[in-house]
Amino acid sequence: MTGKDSAEARHYFDWAATAIPDPPSAKTAPPFGNPSSTHREGRLAREALENARARCAAVLGVAPETLYFTSGGTESNCIALHSTLLRRGAGRLLVSAAEHPSIRENAEILERLGKPVGRLPVDSSGRVSPELFAKPLAKYGDVRFAAIMAVNNETGAVNDMSALRDIARNAADTHGGPPVHLHCDLVQAAGKVPVDISGWDIDSASLSAHKIGGPRGIGLLYLRRPLDVLCAGGGQERKIRPGTENTAGALALAACLERRAAPEKVGAELAQSRRRWKRFLAALKAIDRCVLLPESREIDDETFSPYIVQAAFKDIPGEVMVRALDDLGFAVSTGSACSSSSPDRPVLSAMGIGEKLSLEGIRVSQGWSTTDEEIDLLLAAIAEVLKFL
Amino acid sequence: MTGKDSAEARHYFDWAATAIPDPPSAKTAPPFGNPSSTHREGRLAREALENARARCAAVLGVAPETLYFTSGGTESNCIALHSTLLRRGAGRLLVSAAEHPSIRENAEILERLGKPVGRLPVDSSGRVSPELFAKPLAKYGDVRFAAIMAVNNETGAVNDMSALRDIARNAADTHGGPPVHLHCDLVQAAGKVPVDISGWDIDSASLSAHKIGGPRGIGLLYLRRPLDVLCAGGGQERKIRPGTENTAGALALAACLERRAAPEKVGAELAQSRRRWKRFLAALKAIDRCVLLPESREIDDETFSPYIVQAAFKDIPGEVMVRALDDLGFAVSTGSACSSSSPDRPVLSAMGIGEKLSLEGIRVSQGWSTTDEEIDLLLAAIAEVLKFL
Repeated sequence: MTGKDSAEARHYFDWAATAIPDPPSAKTAPPFGNPSSTHREGRLAREALENARARCAAVLGVAPETLYFTSGGTESNCIALHSTLLRRGAGRLLVSAAEHPSIRENAEILERLGKPVGRLPVDSSGRVSPELFAKPLAKYGDVRFAAIMAVNNETGAVNDMSALRDIARNAADTHGGPPVHLHCDLVQAAGKVPVDISGWDIDSASLSAHKIGGPRGIGLLYLRRPLDVLCAGGGQERKIRPGTENTAGALALAACLERRAAPEKVGAELAQSRRRWKRFLAALKAIDRCVLLPESREIDDETFSPYIVQAAFKDIPGEVMVRALDDLGFAVSTGSACSSSSPDRPVLSAMGIGEKLSLEGIRVSQGWSTTDEEIDLLLAAIAEVLKFL
Repeated sequence: MTGKDSAEARHYFDWAATAIPDPPSAKTAPPFGNPSSTHREGRLAREALENARARCAAVLGVAPETLYFTSGGTESNCIALHSTLLRRGAGRLLVSAAEHPSIRENAEILERLGKPVGRLPVDSSGRVSPELFAKPLAKYGDVRFAAIMAVNNETGAVNDMSALRDIARNAADTHGGPPVHLHCDLVQAAGKVPVDISGWDIDSASLSAHKIGGPRGIGLLYLRRPLDVLCAGGGQERKIRPGTENTAGALALAACLERRAAPEKVGAELAQSRRRWKRFLAALKAIDRCVLLPESREIDDETFSPYIVQAAFKDIPGEVMVRALDDLGFAVSTGSACSSSSPDRPVLSAMGIGEKLSLEGIRVSQGWSTTDEEIDLLLAAIAEVLKFL
């Protein structure tokens, strides 16, 4: 396999950065009107938008009025976090050290604006255990908002949101004061692993269309109760997200969610992904120079999403491995595409992984169209790279 | 003309709310990769995104690195305004009383957060004259940021941005201190009237694709110099606008701008619009019960955009007129679609128009496919409504 051939035969293993588009079958164009207009064109657009919302709500098992269309996961996270600036009662913001940059970096900005912020350590697997969550809640005593993601975007580690919710509730009961708002980034969870917003009883959640085959520029924010948000405008999305509503995007997101995120669909796809990943992880573990990150990850570990794996190849910087595989026709990444411009690996650091090993990590992520054959080809390509590097 | 027939024959006169889509001819799908990914799929997406940016920059006559893709005009306005929270040196924010809600209401939120905010009155035509701008700059002495729109979205009044820029610069020279950042909402100007960001020498500007036939969910923020912004994330758009970049949207926006906003295109379209509007406004002025808002507006007044007119029909509430015309097949609005949920008319109030007359105002806005025949039909429909109401 040469770099030249590979231009034709590409194998995409970076689904966590963005999915291969999976557009629903062509339908008639959505109504073009502005959903805020009162005339017929506006009403038709409003109907389409509310139809999209109802369909998203049905898939996610929540009330339609708890869902707000945004431009994507990052904006949903920003809206939730920045609302703490306007929230009554000072209160501290707590963010896990393994969060996506759209949580971690916004917390830093809020800190610059005077908001008290605490960091929530993660264990060596990248998870927030109930114990780790309980400690800072008790220590600070003034936490009013906590952000913990469902599935880590770099390692696939799955947090037990239901257990974390119990901790948040107990903390409020024990220390008094208002309850802790629990925000959950579902971007790598929706359409991949079972998600149960109502069952988990979380306060807010974010998700994005393009991670599940939909278009860019559309996502959802779930809010159990409306928040007082920082960005205002025309009062759209019941004052949670201003700007003319993206009707076409909302309909496309609804179609994606129906196709990928309905519980029965997730279950069937998950079993296939788990089977493929088990083979892949077993093969990786058999490579002398390869360690999974965290090293404790088992080949069939239900506490990790079988859509993502982080692995390091000793003495090969991750960036070099990504380039070598790219030349051979395989798209993989180091960390999050959202932090590809930074050489740091804050999530791996937070897991206690040393700098050298962290910088050797690559992320491989699969999707619904990934095949066993492609995984074998990837393993062969890795073997080829290891011969020369 | 009956309500029943009208379901088939619709005439759209609400282009200021959103344009009839004018998608560029079908092309190959844009590269799907995440532009922040370093592999081939990512690089192809990055190339497409930068190509879109360069094309937008060429149309707007600015450097590509001054343009940032956002989700639309509202977000562009929010980014610019909220940046004042992090700006060094306290400084006051000044917003014109005729601004779009995404400016006016964000200014109120910033005020709640402790930012000093001043309101800039408008004259009876809805414009900020150089004199009106100079006064508060002198009075406060600490203004560091001012937001003034190019074309008012409710009346079409055009501000003289170049003259206003001179006032801002003189104020800084006279009162000392850092220069005043001048932000300009171009949402109703781009693709409609001549826009000269570089010539006007403004500091930031917003525009939106869907007002010129492009898709929802994509817009631009022009920044002469980067700002320290409030929402962080993956460092996309050189840290000005986080979130996975909407490559398809950016390409569609570039195509729209090329089609509608290139100076030669604007000129040709403007002449046609002016001609159509002159006839329409003359006919409106000939109706006894009709007054243009402001009443001083001439039928061929170059200080107004010939894409928008605000007119009141005596003793007919605007909402009633909008409904009656809608029943006859014509889509018009009262004020901005972005404030259709509110019965207030703050822009008209700011112009000194009394409450009764304000609530009688309707906005009629045309676009590139509006015809003389449609205008005649609209005038006939207005005449019909006036017979019964």
